[in-house]
Amino acid sequence: MTSAAAETGSSPTAAVLIIGNEILSGRTKDANLGHIAEKLSDIGVRLREARVVPDLEEEIIAAVDALRARYTYVFTTGGIGPTHDDITSECIARAFGVPLERNPEAVARLERHYAPGQLNEARLRMANIPAGATLIDNPISQAPGFRIGNVFVMAGVPNIMQAMLDGILPKLAGGPALHARTVSCTLGEGVIAAELGALQDRYADLEIGSYPYFRNGYFGTSLVLRGTDEGRVVAATEELSGVVTRLGGTPTVTVGTKG
Amino acid sequence: MTSAAAETGSSPTAAVLIIGNEILSGRTKDANLGHIAEKLSDIGVRLREARVVPDLEEEIIAAVDALRARYTYVFTTGGIGPTHDDITSECIARAFGVPLERNPEAVARLERHYAPGQLNEARLRMANIPAGATLIDNPISQAPGFRIGNVFVMAGVPNIMQAMLDGILPKLAGGPALHARTVSCTLGEGVIAAELGALQDRYADLEIGSYPYFRNGYFGTSLVLRGTDEGRVVAATEELSGVVTRLGGTPTVTVGTKG
Repeated sequence: MTSAAAETGSSPTAAVLIIGNEILSGRTKDANLGHIAEKLSDIGVRLREARVVPDLEEEIIAAVDALRARYTYVFTTGGIGPTHDDITSECIARAFGVPLERNPEAVARLERHYAPGQLNEARLRMANIPAGATLIDNPISQAPGFRIGNVFVMAGVPNIMQAMLDGILPKLAGGPALHARTVSCTLGEGVIAAELGALQDRYADLEIGSYPYFRNGYFGTSLVLRGTDEGRVVAATEELSGVVTRLGGTPTVTVGTKG
Repeated sequence: MTSAAAETGSSPTAAVLIIGNEILSGRTKDANLGHIAEKLSDIGVRLREARVVPDLEEEIIAAVDALRARYTYVFTTGGIGPTHDDITSECIARAFGVPLERNPEAVARLERHYAPGQLNEARLRMANIPAGATLIDNPISQAPGFRIGNVFVMAGVPNIMQAMLDGILPKLAGGPALHARTVSCTLGEGVIAAELGALQDRYADLEIGSYPYFRNGYFGTSLVLRGTDEGRVVAATEELSGVVTRLGGTPTVTVGTKG
């Protein structure tokens, strides 16, 4: 199995909390987790857990508290709109034991965004921010997200979430860059499993994963090697390519985790 | 906010546990949660939580124990293949405090599937099943999943997972069917929020959600009403359509949660 060292090392860790009944009912397919995961990987932050919870106060608070105590950063999506089922901000305030306040800067942003007379009380709810939080810019529709402690509260609508995240990432302390190689071949996982396990034992500082695929009518296996020491990743990749060839396969090596 | 009654009522509940570093690294986009969510909704089982954890024994065991104690059913995906990073079966056995045994029926299925000489020790690992578990059929590649207690352990490859789930669902005790209507309109969420909240208060037995969309160049809002009493869902839908019209919108009502 993957060594704990390969999993974290000196890298900051993160969790994603997806908030919304629509994800759990199957109505809406989450499109945010994969995007956040890729962006965090790019800056050396290890996403270690994700949770999806319904629009229920006690569930949201319990998940936020469990995750913020455990990981360097927590990113939430969903539940910061103007309707009755948008309760994330209240829940975060309660989790941190601070009041939810009408934020003047958030109000100003909404006033600039809406036509005169359109900024009603429901929309003003989007300016209710936990005391002590700092705003996260929303270049798409202005209603801000916010950061409090190590928790980043973002919108659920993918293009808005992505714009918010783009503004957050440059301010985060990342970790050592993760180097990755993918060795793909048309050998079955079971053919290469024994030697792959032995390789993982020899390279306990790397994270080596095996993923079967079916592409263009062919079954095959993608073997992904990740670690912070590029030299080790390259050395393990060369060994693995040799193993694949010895077992009668043709290794295709690509940089990164795709392929 | 959504009432607890609307959330569960007499319905069985479920959680999904997605196991695999590839989901948390962003390499692989999960395609299973949405599918499982829809299928459970169809039989009146309420998916209440989902978690994604890495291929780490202690993480998997802790999540399985937390979820199986809390929900009627737990469905796991991933980690039952032949390679070193496939550790789900061992973890489930440890969570239940039972030995992991080589299952004769699972071995027989693998023997029928692989050509003579191809069923090596790595592949035989896929026949290691916790004592007392019952097998879940895998019509695609034979290597079975299993059920132990209220936990259903399935493959991570989507077409295999879907085939396993199709075999499981008819055997589950479902709940009262959920009836749903969607009222969509081009009014902004903020325009309708106040009356929508009042409607949710009057229909606390229903789950009413508001989801902004951007389609064919138009922004709009989809308002989803769900509940086990179809008459109540229909009545609330009619009231809501009236609200939309009164606010200057044109309601489009569809059966189900899409639209």
